[in-house]
Amino acid sequence: MSVLNNLKWRYATKRMNGQKVPSEKIENILEAIQLAPTSIGMQPFTVLVIEDPELKTKIAPAIYNQPQITEGSHVLVFAAWKEYSNKNVSKYINHIASLRGIPIESLDGMRDMVSRSIASKTPEQLLNWNMRQAYIALGTGLVAAAEEKVDATPMEGFDPDALDAALGLAEKGLHSTVILALGYRDSEKDYLSSAAKVRRDKEELFIRL
Amino acid sequence: MSVLNNLKWRYATKRMNGQKVPSEKIENILEAIQLAPTSIGMQPFTVLVIEDPELKTKIAPAIYNQPQITEGSHVLVFAAWKEYSNKNVSKYINHIASLRGIPIESLDGMRDMVSRSIASKTPEQLLNWNMRQAYIALGTGLVAAAEEKVDATPMEGFDPDALDAALGLAEKGLHSTVILALGYRDSEKDYLSSAAKVRRDKEELFIRL
Repeated sequence: MSVLNNLKWRYATKRMNGQKVPSEKIENILEAIQLAPTSIGMQPFTVLVIEDPELKTKIAPAIYNQPQITEGSHVLVFAAWKEYSNKNVSKYINHIASLRGIPIESLDGMRDMVSRSIASKTPEQLLNWNMRQAYIALGTGLVAAAEEKVDATPMEGFDPDALDAALGLAEKGLHSTVILALGYRDSEKDYLSSAAKVRRDKEELFIRL
Repeated sequence: MSVLNNLKWRYATKRMNGQKVPSEKIENILEAIQLAPTSIGMQPFTVLVIEDPELKTKIAPAIYNQPQITEGSHVLVFAAWKEYSNKNVSKYINHIASLRGIPIESLDGMRDMVSRSIASKTPEQLLNWNMRQAYIALGTGLVAAAEEKVDATPMEGFDPDALDAALGLAEKGLHSTVILALGYRDSEKDYLSSAAKVRRDKEELFIRL
């Protein structure tokens, strides 16, 4: 199974060699992120795709100067929506109607369901819900990166408020959630490149009923 | 790219035909879930793999009797850990030392880092953090299912407290987080099987910097 082989090949690369990832590969990884399913289909996050070396240097302190940010080729910052507006919901409903060639009135029930779902949550619950959706896309994106033999490091070790400030996310209604650094491993410098993968045994992780 | 083709093939199947998914395919999907990376590598969740028809019938009301639960072959319930204990952390550190053949003392820094990470969070933050990790595995699992041409429906539409009660999760320190129903689409009954996939345009989902 290629997904399994690719998941075994990948690891949380700590040191990268500065080599640039070709744009076709980046586009494929982004498409896997775009295709990830999300709750109700809203995709309530934006992904910043950062290639500019100056900007990577600028945000590095907010990510505790971890080397993947500057040694990597592209840094993806998944930023969850802090809020929904009726505009977002209408845009989504219009998009479905137009893509599927169905009357917009036929989606009234769905519009109500989406609006009720959103209204039932506190702002904090809403943000947590949106953040979780971004993690599905992180999962599909890192499988796609592995298929492209591009190293991808998921990173939570950063100061979200400092990163929001460095990228002007708050004024866009966004909150930085998780990072995926893309590049190529530097096997000599990275002690993890040859370390055994550690995962909980199936007998522990799964309960079969 | 097979990941992209597989992601395009899949959709949130609403009606399934009752056909059983062979156990080799289930094991591959579970392995993709096992191999998913998680923050610090803790894999802070348990996945219930439910095949027993009686149990599926029993939990269906907590999932608002959505048809995938009984028409599907296997129901995976991702249940996040509600808490960590020093035992969990020690077990994890011992596992790393043993798999990598390194002295356990060499992991003292990591043990401190993990313990500090956990101690810095409120119980609610910890649960949200753990829940997010489960979504990465949801993402890798559904790509693996698509490679196996097994339909997989991620489901958040359930009553978590009722599902916890039906499965006895609270007493295990677990909280039901998200479901992945596995089975085979019933294309005749499922209006979505031929509907166009709706995703935000790349120009909207991504900001390139």
